[in-house]
Amino acid sequence: MTDVAIFGAGRIGKIHAGNLVRQPGVKLKYVVDPDAAAAKALATQHGATVGTIEGVFADAAIRAVVIASSTDTHADLIERAAHSKKAIFCEKPVDLDYARAQRCLKTVKDAGVPCLIGFQRRYDPTFAAAKSRIEAGEIGEPEMLVITSRDPGAPPVEYLKRSGGIFKDMLIHDFDVFRWILDDDARTVYATGSVLTDPAVGTVGDVDCTAVTIRTKKGRLAQINTTRRAAYGYDQRFEVIGSRGMLQAGNHRPTEVVSSTAQSVSADKPEHFFLERYQRAYANEMAHFFDALAKGTPIKTGIDDGVKALQLAEAATTSWREQRIVEL
Amino acid sequence: MTDVAIFGAGRIGKIHAGNLVRQPGVKLKYVVDPDAAAAKALATQHGATVGTIEGVFADAAIRAVVIASSTDTHADLIERAAHSKKAIFCEKPVDLDYARAQRCLKTVKDAGVPCLIGFQRRYDPTFAAAKSRIEAGEIGEPEMLVITSRDPGAPPVEYLKRSGGIFKDMLIHDFDVFRWILDDDARTVYATGSVLTDPAVGTVGDVDCTAVTIRTKKGRLAQINTTRRAAYGYDQRFEVIGSRGMLQAGNHRPTEVVSSTAQSVSADKPEHFFLERYQRAYANEMAHFFDALAKGTPIKTGIDDGVKALQLAEAATTSWREQRIVEL
Amino acid sequence: MTDVAIFGAGRIGKIHAGNLVRQPGVKLKYVVDPDAAAAKALATQHGATVGTIEGVFADAAIRAVVIASSTDTHADLIERAAHSKKAIFCEKPVDLDYARAQRCLKTVKDAGVPCLIGFQRRYDPTFAAAKSRIEAGEIGEPEMLVITSRDPGAPPVEYLKRSGGIFKDMLIHDFDVFRWILDDDARTVYATGSVLTDPAVGTVGDVDCTAVTIRTKKGRLAQINTTRRAAYGYDQRFEVIGSRGMLQAGNHRPTEVVSSTAQSVSADKPEHFFLERYQRAYANEMAHFFDALAKGTPIKTGIDDGVKALQLAEAATTSWREQRIVEL
Amino acid sequence: MTDVAIFGAGRIGKIHAGNLVRQPGVKLKYVVDPDAAAAKALATQHGATVGTIEGVFADAAIRAVVIASSTDTHADLIERAAHSKKAIFCEKPVDLDYARAQRCLKTVKDAGVPCLIGFQRRYDPTFAAAKSRIEAGEIGEPEMLVITSRDPGAPPVEYLKRSGGIFKDMLIHDFDVFRWILDDDARTVYATGSVLTDPAVGTVGDVDCTAVTIRTKKGRLAQINTTRRAAYGYDQRFEVIGSRGMLQAGNHRPTEVVSSTAQSVSADKPEHFFLERYQRAYANEMAHFFDALAKGTPIKTGIDDGVKALQLAEAATTSWREQRIVEL
Repeated sequence: MTDVAIFGAGRIGKIHAGNLVRQPGVKLKYVVDPDAAAAKALATQHGATVGTIEGVFADAAIRAVVIASSTDTHADLIERAAHSKKAIFCEKPVDLDYARAQRCLKTVKDAGVPCLIGFQRRYDPTFAAAKSRIEAGEIGEPEMLVITSRDPGAPPVEYLKRSGGIFKDMLIHDFDVFRWILDDDARTVYATGSVLTDPAVGTVGDVDCTAVTIRTKKGRLAQINTTRRAAYGYDQRFEVIGSRGMLQAGNHRPTEVVSSTAQSVSADKPEHFFLERYQRAYANEMAHFFDALAKGTPIKTGIDDGVKALQLAEAATTSWREQRIVEL
Repeated sequence: MTDVAIFGAGRIGKIHAGNLVRQPGVKLKYVVDPDAAAAKALATQHGATVGTIEGVFADAAIRAVVIASSTDTHADLIERAAHSKKAIFCEKPVDLDYARAQRCLKTVKDAGVPCLIGFQRRYDPTFAAAKSRIEAGEIGEPEMLVITSRDPGAPPVEYLKRSGGIFKDMLIHDFDVFRWILDDDARTVYATGSVLTDPAVGTVGDVDCTAVTIRTKKGRLAQINTTRRAAYGYDQRFEVIGSRGMLQAGNHRPTEVVSSTAQSVSADKPEHFFLERYQRAYANEMAHFFDALAKGTPIKTGIDDGVKALQLAEAATTSWREQRIVEL
Repeated sequence: MTDVAIFGAGRIGKIHAGNLVRQPGVKLKYVVDPDAAAAKALATQHGATVGTIEGVFADAAIRAVVIASSTDTHADLIERAAHSKKAIFCEKPVDLDYARAQRCLKTVKDAGVPCLIGFQRRYDPTFAAAKSRIEAGEIGEPEMLVITSRDPGAPPVEYLKRSGGIFKDMLIHDFDVFRWILDDDARTVYATGSVLTDPAVGTVGDVDCTAVTIRTKKGRLAQINTTRRAAYGYDQRFEVIGSRGMLQAGNHRPTEVVSSTAQSVSADKPEHFFLERYQRAYANEMAHFFDALAKGTPIKTGIDDGVKALQLAEAATTSWREQRIVEL
Repeated sequence: MTDVAIFGAGRIGKIHAGNLVRQPGVKLKYVVDPDAAAAKALATQHGATVGTIEGVFADAAIRAVVIASSTDTHADLIERAAHSKKAIFCEKPVDLDYARAQRCLKTVKDAGVPCLIGFQRRYDPTFAAAKSRIEAGEIGEPEMLVITSRDPGAPPVEYLKRSGGIFKDMLIHDFDVFRWILDDDARTVYATGSVLTDPAVGTVGDVDCTAVTIRTKKGRLAQINTTRRAAYGYDQRFEVIGSRGMLQAGNHRPTEVVSSTAQSVSADKPEHFFLERYQRAYANEMAHFFDALAKGTPIKTGIDDGVKALQLAEAATTSWREQRIVEL
C-alpha cells in the first residue's frame, strides 16, 4: 500500500481525496487542514486520520503528498516534501513569485522526487485526444493556436487581491496549454486587458478580460482570449491550425438533448464550471500520478512546466502593465 | 451496513459490482457464479466472499440481491429472493416467457419486496433529461415518438439461438423507452423485420433489422427502427414531437474534438457500445436502487415495467411472424 | 428561343415563372390563369402575354408548357399538351385518381413527349448530394431508410377536403423520395394515422399525423413519419443506413448564427417552409427540364415516377382506412 | 431605367454584372475593360455595349458606375465618377495609399455622390443577422470580438507583390468587420505575422499568417487570426462576447449531409471560397446600392468606411514591420 497525506480539505482537496482513494494500492492516511472541522470531515469520509504538517513529514511511511492547500503554502510544502523524499502532487501554481518558484524547482530537482503540478487540462479526454492527434500528424505541422478560456463569473474581490492577478491566476492554465499543444517556446508576449464585467476588479489593480498574443521561437502564432464572466458559462476551447488541417477541442455538455421550439433549436450550455468540466481530467490526473510513481515513468506535468507557465504569466503581466511587447 | 449478494460475475456483473461498492453504507458480501474463477476474481477485487445460491438465501443478513446471471436463471432467482424477503435488482428480462414473467410479478407483489428491472436507459443523463423536460411541459402534449436503436454488431449466432429473438433481446429496451416517454399504452403493434446484415441470423429464425410501429390508446404514434449492425457504432437516439416543439435525445461522443481537413469536417463516432454509453446510467441506476431502499420510495423501473415491455416484445414477435397487426 | 407557356399564376406559378425566365434561350410567351388579374400581373412582370388554354395549344411555336394550375386540371392539361406534342413540366400530382393518372401516363408515352413531374426534392442540393454519395458506394448497400417529413402547419380545412387526403397530398413527396433513395419497389405498405394537432382535420375524414412502414421487394425497410404541424417549422430530413455507414440529409437554416446565453446554446430553426427550403431545388428542377429538352436526355422525375408515387399513396390510404397491411 | 457602366470584366466584374442586371429598373449599358475580349464577352451576355472610360464619363445618361477593375485604377475612377456626379459602387480598397484614399474621400464628399465600398461581408445573411441581434440587445453590451479569417490558399506571388501586403489585401475586410460589429474605434493596434505556409511569400516582403489585437477607445478587445492557407478551405467566422451572452457567426456549408462511417461522423467543409460563401452577400450588396440610390437613403458601407479600414491596415502593417504597438 502507498500511504498518502493530503494538505487541504477544501473544494479541490475533496476532489483529489475522492480520486485518490480509488487508486488501487493507495491509502489516504492523513488529512491536514487549518480548518479542523473540514479536516475531520474529509478524514472520516475516507477512513483517514487528521494529521499535522510536522506529523506527515515525520512519518516515513508516507510516500506521497497531495498539496491542495492555499497558494501561499505551496512552495513551502513542496520543499519540505522534497527534503523528506516524498513524491509530490501539487495544485497550480508553484508560487506567485517566479524567483521563489525557481528555487522550488531546484530543490525538487536536487531531491530527485517526482513532482506533478496540477495542470489538469492536459488530462481532459478532449484536450488530450487533440494533442495525441496532432502528434500523430493528423494536421501536419502546427502553425497557429487560438485558445478561448472564459469563466462563468469572477471570484470575490477578496480572492482576487491575493490571486497574483488574472494572468497568474487564470491564464496560467492557458499558458501551459499553449506550451503543451505547440510544443514550442515563446519568443515574445503581448498582453492587454480591460475591466469590462465588474468595476470592482479594477479597484484591486486587476483586469477581467484579456487578449494575449505569443510568437514562438519557430515563428508560430498563438492568441488567447479570456473573460472572467461569460454569461453562458464555462467556455474552454482551443483550435490548432496546421499545414494539413485544423483540430478544434470543444466544450462538453451535461446532456445531448436538443430542443426545437417556435423560437429556436437549442442545446445544453457547456458544463457549468471546472469541477464539472474537468471531473474526468482530475481523475485521470490522479491515476497518472500513481501510475507514474508505480512504474517510475516521467510525470506529464512536472514542476518545470509549472515554472515555465509562471514565467509566461509574469511576462504577460509586465506586457499589460507597461503596455509593451515583452521578449523572453 | 446493507449486505448484498450478486449473482453473475461476467461483463455486466462486474459493472454492477463496481457501482455497488461505491454506494455509501452498502457492502458486497457474496459473489455467486457457476464459473468459480470468475466469482473468485470479482469477490477478491471487492473484498467479498464467494457464495452459493443456497447460502445467499439462507443468510438473513443479506438485504438485497443483484441478479446479473444468465437470462434463464432470472425468474427463479427473483422468486427465491421474493420468498426470502430480499430486495431485488435484476437485469432485464424477467424471463423470455410472458406467462412465466407474469407469475414472477405476482410472486414479487405478494412478497411486497422492492424489485428493480435493469432498464438502464431511463437512468441515462440525456434520456432522463428529455423525460424531465417533457414532464415539465416544454414541448406541450407529446404526439409522436421516433426511436433509433442500433447496435454496432450482432452477437454470435450461438447467443442469438437462446436470446428469444431480436424483439425480446434488443427491442425490449426500446419498448420500455416507448412506455416511459409517451406515458401511454399500446393499442396496436405492427412489426416487420429482415435479415440484411448477416445470413447466419436467418438460419436461427431471427432477423437483424426491424421496423416497428405502435399506436397508443390515446392515438399517439411511435416508430422504432433497429439494426444489429450499424457500421459507425452504437446509435441510441429518440425524438419526441409534441404540440409545442420537439426534444431529441442524441448520442454521446467520447471527446469533443472536431477535425477539419481537405476531405471533411469530422467529429467522433458515438460511444462504442452499451458499456460506454450507459456507464453513467448503470451508476445512476444502482444509486437509485439503494436510495429507494433506504428511503422506502418507489423503484422507477419495477417488475411490472419488465413484464409490460415483454408483452410488447411478444406482440411484435407475433406481428412479424404472422405478418399482421396485433391488438393488445 | 424556346417559347413556353405557363398555366397557373399563383404561389408556385410565380416561382416557376421566375426560374423559367432565367434559363438561357427560353422565353415565357403566355401566362394562363382563370384569375385574370393574377395572369396579367405575372405576364407583365416577365414581358409575357396573357393567354388562353386554347391559344397555347394552338400555337405551334410553343414547345413546352409548365402546369402550375390547380390539381384537378393537371391530367387534362397533360393530355392536351401530349396531343399537341409539347414538352410538359407539371406540378405533382398527375391526378388524385390512380386510374386517371395511368391513362395520362399512357397518353404521354404514346405521344413520346418529355414530361417532368414536380418532385422538387430530388433537385435539392442536400438530398441530391446524399443520393449521389449512395450511388458512389459511400455507405455500401442501402438497408434502411427513415424519412421525417413535417409541415409547420396544416392548410385550411377547405383545402384538405379537395386534397385527396394526407397520403396523396403530403406524403406523395416522401413516397417518391423512398423510391428514389432506395432504388427499389414496395412489396407491402402499412400506414396508420391520427388526428392529433387539430380536430377539424378529422371532420373532413383526414388525419394530420402518420406513421408508414414499407417493405421493399429486396427486403429493405423504410419508415416515414409525418405531421402537419411541427411547432418549430418545416422539418425535412432522411437517413439511410447502409452496410458500411449512414448518410443523413438534414435541414437547412437561414443563417449560421449560434447564440449562447444563460439559458441555452441555440441555432436557427429550419428554413420556414417549402418555398424557402426548396428555393434552389425549384431553380435546379427548371434548369434540368430545359437542359434535358435541349440535349434530348431523360427527365429525372418522369410521369411514371408520378404514377408510382400515387400508387403508394393509394396503398397507404387503404392501409390506414382498412387497418391492414397492403400488398403491392 | 437607371443606366449603369461597369469597369472590369474579370472574376468579380462578372459577379457584379450578373447581380446588376437583376435589379428592377437597372440597365447595364457599358462594359469597360482593357482586355477587349473579356469586355466583349460580358457585354454580349447582358445585352450591353463595350465602352471606354472617356465614353462612360461623357455619357450623361449613366447614373452609376460599378468599379471592379484592378486596384490601382480605383482612386482615379472614383474621382472621375465623383466629378461627373455619378453614383459609385467600388470594390475594396479605395487605394493602397492612405493619403491617396483620404483625398478620394474628400473628392467624393465634396461632390456629394453616393459611394459604396465593397465590404460585402456586411451583406452576408449570417454576419448581418449577428449584427442585427447585437443591436437588438440579445447579448447586452459587446465586450470582446474574435475574428477568424482564413483563405483556402495564397494567390500567386506576382499578385502578392502588388497587393499592398496581407493587412491591406486580406485583413482589410476584417478591420471593417471589427469596426462594424463593435461600433467602436481602435485606440491601439498590435500585429504580428509569420511566413508559415509558403516561403515564396516571404521573398516579396509579406507574411501569410497574422495575429492582430485591437483595443478600442471604450476598452473593448478584439483579436483577429488569419492564414492564407487553411487546408480545409475558406474559414470565415467571428464571435462576439457581450455582457449577457455570445453570438457566433459560423461558416456555411454547400449541403447538410452528414456521413457516419467506421471512421468518423463528418459534414461538408465550408463553402469553397469567397465567390461561393459570399454569393448572397454580393447579390444583397448590389440590391442595397440601387435601393439606396432609388430612395436616397444612406449607403451602409461608405467611402469613409473604406478609408478607416485602410487606416487600420496601415497601422497593423507598421506594428508588424516595426514590432511595436501602434496608437491611433
